[in-house]
Amino acid sequence: MKTYNVGLIGAGFMAKAHSLAYAGMPMYFWPAPGLTHRKMVADVTEELAKDAAARLGYDEYTANWMDIINNPDIDIVDIVTPNDSHAEIAIAAAKAGKHIISEKPLARNAAEAKTMLDAVKEAGVKHMVAFNYRRTPAVALAKKYIEEGAIGKVLNFRGTYLQDWSVDPNSPLSWRFKKDIAGSGALGDIGTHVVDFARYLVGEISDVMAHTQTWVKERPIQTGGVDKLGTVKSAEDVPKGQVDVDDELMTLLKFENGAVGSIEATRNAHGRNNFLTFEIHGEKGSLIFNYERRDELQVFFADDPADRKGFRTVYTGPAHPYGEGLWPIPALGIGYGDTKIIEVYDFVKAIAEDTDVYPNFDDGYQICVISDAILQSAEKGEWVKVNKLAVTTP
Amino acid sequence: MKTYNVGLIGAGFMAKAHSLAYAGMPMYFWPAPGLTHRKMVADVTEELAKDAAARLGYDEYTANWMDIINNPDIDIVDIVTPNDSHAEIAIAAAKAGKHIISEKPLARNAAEAKTMLDAVKEAGVKHMVAFNYRRTPAVALAKKYIEEGAIGKVLNFRGTYLQDWSVDPNSPLSWRFKKDIAGSGALGDIGTHVVDFARYLVGEISDVMAHTQTWVKERPIQTGGVDKLGTVKSAEDVPKGQVDVDDELMTLLKFENGAVGSIEATRNAHGRNNFLTFEIHGEKGSLIFNYERRDELQVFFADDPADRKGFRTVYTGPAHPYGEGLWPIPALGIGYGDTKIIEVYDFVKAIAEDTDVYPNFDDGYQICVISDAILQSAEKGEWVKVNKLAVTTP
Amino acid sequence: MKTYNVGLIGAGFMAKAHSLAYAGMPMYFWPAPGLTHRKMVADVTEELAKDAAARLGYDEYTANWMDIINNPDIDIVDIVTPNDSHAEIAIAAAKAGKHIISEKPLARNAAEAKTMLDAVKEAGVKHMVAFNYRRTPAVALAKKYIEEGAIGKVLNFRGTYLQDWSVDPNSPLSWRFKKDIAGSGALGDIGTHVVDFARYLVGEISDVMAHTQTWVKERPIQTGGVDKLGTVKSAEDVPKGQVDVDDELMTLLKFENGAVGSIEATRNAHGRNNFLTFEIHGEKGSLIFNYERRDELQVFFADDPADRKGFRTVYTGPAHPYGEGLWPIPALGIGYGDTKIIEVYDFVKAIAEDTDVYPNFDDGYQICVISDAILQSAEKGEWVKVNKLAVTTP
Amino acid sequence: MKTYNVGLIGAGFMAKAHSLAYAGMPMYFWPAPGLTHRKMVADVTEELAKDAAARLGYDEYTANWMDIINNPDIDIVDIVTPNDSHAEIAIAAAKAGKHIISEKPLARNAAEAKTMLDAVKEAGVKHMVAFNYRRTPAVALAKKYIEEGAIGKVLNFRGTYLQDWSVDPNSPLSWRFKKDIAGSGALGDIGTHVVDFARYLVGEISDVMAHTQTWVKERPIQTGGVDKLGTVKSAEDVPKGQVDVDDELMTLLKFENGAVGSIEATRNAHGRNNFLTFEIHGEKGSLIFNYERRDELQVFFADDPADRKGFRTVYTGPAHPYGEGLWPIPALGIGYGDTKIIEVYDFVKAIAEDTDVYPNFDDGYQICVISDAILQSAEKGEWVKVNKLAVTTP
Repeated sequence: MKTYNVGLIGAGFMAKAHSLAYAGMPMYFWPAPGLTHRKMVADVTEELAKDAAARLGYDEYTANWMDIINNPDIDIVDIVTPNDSHAEIAIAAAKAGKHIISEKPLARNAAEAKTMLDAVKEAGVKHMVAFNYRRTPAVALAKKYIEEGAIGKVLNFRGTYLQDWSVDPNSPLSWRFKKDIAGSGALGDIGTHVVDFARYLVGEISDVMAHTQTWVKERPIQTGGVDKLGTVKSAEDVPKGQVDVDDELMTLLKFENGAVGSIEATRNAHGRNNFLTFEIHGEKGSLIFNYERRDELQVFFADDPADRKGFRTVYTGPAHPYGEGLWPIPALGIGYGDTKIIEVYDFVKAIAEDTDVYPNFDDGYQICVISDAILQSAEKGEWVKVNKLAVTTP
Repeated sequence: MKTYNVGLIGAGFMAKAHSLAYAGMPMYFWPAPGLTHRKMVADVTEELAKDAAARLGYDEYTANWMDIINNPDIDIVDIVTPNDSHAEIAIAAAKAGKHIISEKPLARNAAEAKTMLDAVKEAGVKHMVAFNYRRTPAVALAKKYIEEGAIGKVLNFRGTYLQDWSVDPNSPLSWRFKKDIAGSGALGDIGTHVVDFARYLVGEISDVMAHTQTWVKERPIQTGGVDKLGTVKSAEDVPKGQVDVDDELMTLLKFENGAVGSIEATRNAHGRNNFLTFEIHGEKGSLIFNYERRDELQVFFADDPADRKGFRTVYTGPAHPYGEGLWPIPALGIGYGDTKIIEVYDFVKAIAEDTDVYPNFDDGYQICVISDAILQSAEKGEWVKVNKLAVTTP
Repeated sequence: MKTYNVGLIGAGFMAKAHSLAYAGMPMYFWPAPGLTHRKMVADVTEELAKDAAARLGYDEYTANWMDIINNPDIDIVDIVTPNDSHAEIAIAAAKAGKHIISEKPLARNAAEAKTMLDAVKEAGVKHMVAFNYRRTPAVALAKKYIEEGAIGKVLNFRGTYLQDWSVDPNSPLSWRFKKDIAGSGALGDIGTHVVDFARYLVGEISDVMAHTQTWVKERPIQTGGVDKLGTVKSAEDVPKGQVDVDDELMTLLKFENGAVGSIEATRNAHGRNNFLTFEIHGEKGSLIFNYERRDELQVFFADDPADRKGFRTVYTGPAHPYGEGLWPIPALGIGYGDTKIIEVYDFVKAIAEDTDVYPNFDDGYQICVISDAILQSAEKGEWVKVNKLAVTTP
Repeated sequence: MKTYNVGLIGAGFMAKAHSLAYAGMPMYFWPAPGLTHRKMVADVTEELAKDAAARLGYDEYTANWMDIINNPDIDIVDIVTPNDSHAEIAIAAAKAGKHIISEKPLARNAAEAKTMLDAVKEAGVKHMVAFNYRRTPAVALAKKYIEEGAIGKVLNFRGTYLQDWSVDPNSPLSWRFKKDIAGSGALGDIGTHVVDFARYLVGEISDVMAHTQTWVKERPIQTGGVDKLGTVKSAEDVPKGQVDVDDELMTLLKFENGAVGSIEATRNAHGRNNFLTFEIHGEKGSLIFNYERRDELQVFFADDPADRKGFRTVYTGPAHPYGEGLWPIPALGIGYGDTKIIEVYDFVKAIAEDTDVYPNFDDGYQICVISDAILQSAEKGEWVKVNKLAVTTP
């Protein structure tokens, strides 16, 4: 069993999730496809990096992420920085022959994502983009049902991602509200997870018709660098800066296979915390998922007897995808960390067995293409055709 | 207490709901604003009408609805026929000075609705369109919260009406699938209830961007006249006819007050029975309603203490709208009939006290205007501005 | 189709429910087994009775309920008075040869119930006790599944009936808190509905082990006669009287067929409105019902495929018991009134067709036997065997 | 920051949960009260122990757990073996001066538990029993609300723990079905978690009245040693052995403070996976929890305005207990692992800061006392008084 050394770039809350995943993966999936070793972590200052190493269990630390790139012992580069640095880091890592997992969205726009995709293809390294929610066992089960034909041809996909952490006008102007860093707002931050669901479960999106809205047009300028997702309030007298990204997004969709759909994403929905959902209607059944109750998938089979029809609430467990690696009975409880443990498992497996892994940079790029189309549609107020990636992934 | 004689035109399932309402209203709301007497019912044949009179408790019956119009003892004409006859009947009734309650949608299109609106205004009679779902106590409570400012300025409205009774391609080509009778498909049949919610709770809609879909393009021709909402299947060898209305509708909305929103309506959503819902996000809170669990309204107040925030599931009862007329404690159970009893109460009250009642033909007309805009948008694939009614209603 | 004249004795909220049922029954079930006519209503004063006649639609009224008994035109006597008068009225009605439907509990104790049972048997009239909740279509569906063997041999029954209307110590000392009128407290008022479910769905109860609790030991003496179920608060200075019945009841159960179970009933559960539930585990499946969401029955079938197992949420409709009489699709909405309409349907059918109807006075008596055993067990703190009725009903 | 060396004894699924917790704790809670190092793991054979060390990340392994006791570098002994070995190991560990965390139930009966309690008191080491479910943030929030008086004096506690993994008569006779190893069945395995909730949230239990049931009286003898919680089925021809513990448990409770309650625990409830719930009614409000939806706590406040009352569904997050260590917004998702990470955090904190930690062996002992009383009550069919621990813990 080979051990792969990991270099982690970034030390925010996603760094915690990824680090837990490296530690936990072999405990879940055994024999593991390979082991990982937390070798080096980079953050913006030496002090922060040192702290992160102690906290997250890395041997070494650096304030210069190029130390990770240049370290020949590092096998995997894990990118958990704000969106504007993904491309530079990933391209450098690819050139250095490292396998790469990057947080989402892959880049601020499709053009930028394309440079990353070209780099990893050129380098021949493994590449993955961390749309971890599709690794929720209940979402993987939805995929399985669809592939088995259990709900027939898909007619309609309806996805939402509703949060409320940015509804307070006094929550600070973090990088997530700045187009030059984030690329977009609710769209890139959360909407892309729904786009990932749509492509994963239904197929390629061909046309989009979108409307975006910025409800809070200026916010207190943030002094510290830490992203607190709205839990810190600014003082009254802090000077304000412009928000230049979307708070909310509504989109109609057409799929290449004839299905239709819609996506709504907002960070201004009071009372919704992490309301990532889909509802899919097919010719033979339906599926409903709500991440806030992520142990459960609801499925309706049209061929059940007339007096016994109803949505089944399936609690995922050993009989379902990834079940062998999780807990011995359903509803012991899937947490956020578990989605990341599964993600690392699939990534390491692809490296060890030299196979493809999804969603990869092709997917990450295509989602940027769709995001660009959504923003363009919102600006023009009309349907926009999505350019299709030359080579699609399953 | 005056007694108003009712003439009911039509004898399908809506006739049952309306007739129960006339019988039950004074039992619920007492002292009643007025009483009603079930005087005469009309159906397409004398035999059917006679049967309806016995079943629904009317003194007299007729196969000619003009007998109701011409009967000077009739005070209220109640129209529960398919959509294509609403206008002719309502105009005749208005000319005869009858108060009118009509099933929804008011007409097949805005032009037709306008003739009805003109007639009732000219005649000075009371007029109401039976969007009964807004009389669900939980929906009326949502209205009350919004008017009290409990959720602040509304940002977003998301409504759905999902059913599955037409998903089977073998369910027959009833009048609900024919444009010349119904005007439209899922839009008029169910989508208009959501449009009514949107206008009632948020305000006037200014722009729509829609997509419609007809999933089942032909259906077995129906021989009998009865509308069974998909519960009857045709034999295999029955000749088929074209469906020329929408099975499914998705719409983005802009409101005059700056809110945005979306509506989805379909009769092809396996497992959804009568899934009429809304979710409304405001600056100070949110509301969620699902008619399938109609005793409940969920409300989130942003000013609750940080560690005690969460959607409250309010079961409507004596402390809520119409509560004095319903049952002594919440959750004894609101049924479909109850929404109709409340509707009749408000209608009779308006007649007895000579006040306005909503939704009236102005509302019914404006909803037709919006429906026309939706169909136009779907055809053109672009945003369409909604013409505003000269005189709006509260 | 014969018409049966109804004499209604009592005019509180149950009178409203029963009267609506007489009016609505033929509208739902057609051809009806028979029609009913609301002939005469009795209340404690002439003024109240007159008002009730107008409100509920009865031809005549009286302040002397014996006028109903003595009226040869009356076919059905409907008893909706407080518990202490059930026996006297029912026995008089039986002697007069009337068919009888009585509100529950049948009597204040088994001995009293026995006199009623003897009277109706002697008279040979139809008799029914109004445990209406078992006529919720979802409950009838649970019965059907069990009879079909769909969940196998029943192992466990767990029932609750939780309300909160009496939790406020200032809600007045209505008759429901007085043993001489009510017989018992939460037990007779609501617990007996759960006992009815247990017998209906599982079988005869053989042993009980109970604990009762009176949380609020004295309450303001009520001046008016009306039962408001806690919605009226007394003034501070009202003199108080003793509560001598139970507020809360917990019981373990053994059934004759080997199943076990438990019942909890309380009117002091803040936030629970009409939380009447059961959960039944069998060798091949399980059932869950909650009246607060009464359109739904949850059922789990153990023989579903391993990866497709889960509770199905079945919305009752045309494919389920009584569905032909209700609404054309599920989730249009079952209300409290609908359970009473179904009850009247079954009662009139039994009269017209001269068949048995359940729950009848045998059942009402046996439930009193069980209630007595529960109170005895609570007093002694030990298991008590339930005496079995000589002749049981299916 | 001190680092504590851990010796883990046992390598089943609980070993995985505990090991993940050691790895993840500082990632969650930082600065951590102390760090842990996974030093040595013991399992029944050298081969299994070696495999466990690789999988779970321990430096060393042994087939003789005394190697852990005798190793002076080990600070913490973590016991995740079947119940019959807890006492021997814990007493040895205490004598060796190790801090001890033991899986639950602490022992097979109170007498055995007392020997463990005496040993740790004598040794003056830290001791904890792993009733991890009370560390679900939503459960800790319930505790906080109760301590703040938010629901007033508690009247009633109703707890359940329903699973279905043992319902199949062909699932093998693992140690969990043998009294000599497990002590009891559903009671010790799952019921004790509810007892822990009851004591934690309401207070000391004074009297119990129980009934137990063994539905499947014999099972196929298990050949391998691994506990699969029912996911493995035996072949038809495997010889069978007697089950001598309870499958199901129902108990009425009285608390010292006057509250009453009930507990039901079963592993034979088809469709229930890990349905660990409580409902608590107080004089000023109520609480509802269901571990299957563990991110949520429902709370009802009686002093909310009459028209705005309803259970609030609170999703736990940064504003709630342990929130600072978890994820930045609610509903990212609490999993089983997270409850164990919190448990380790509290345990290490108690060691580092030399403070008490709960539930400790005093609690573990008292729960065994209550369990013994429950079994005694079930055998005798009468109420049994619970002996109170001389020194109670908060």
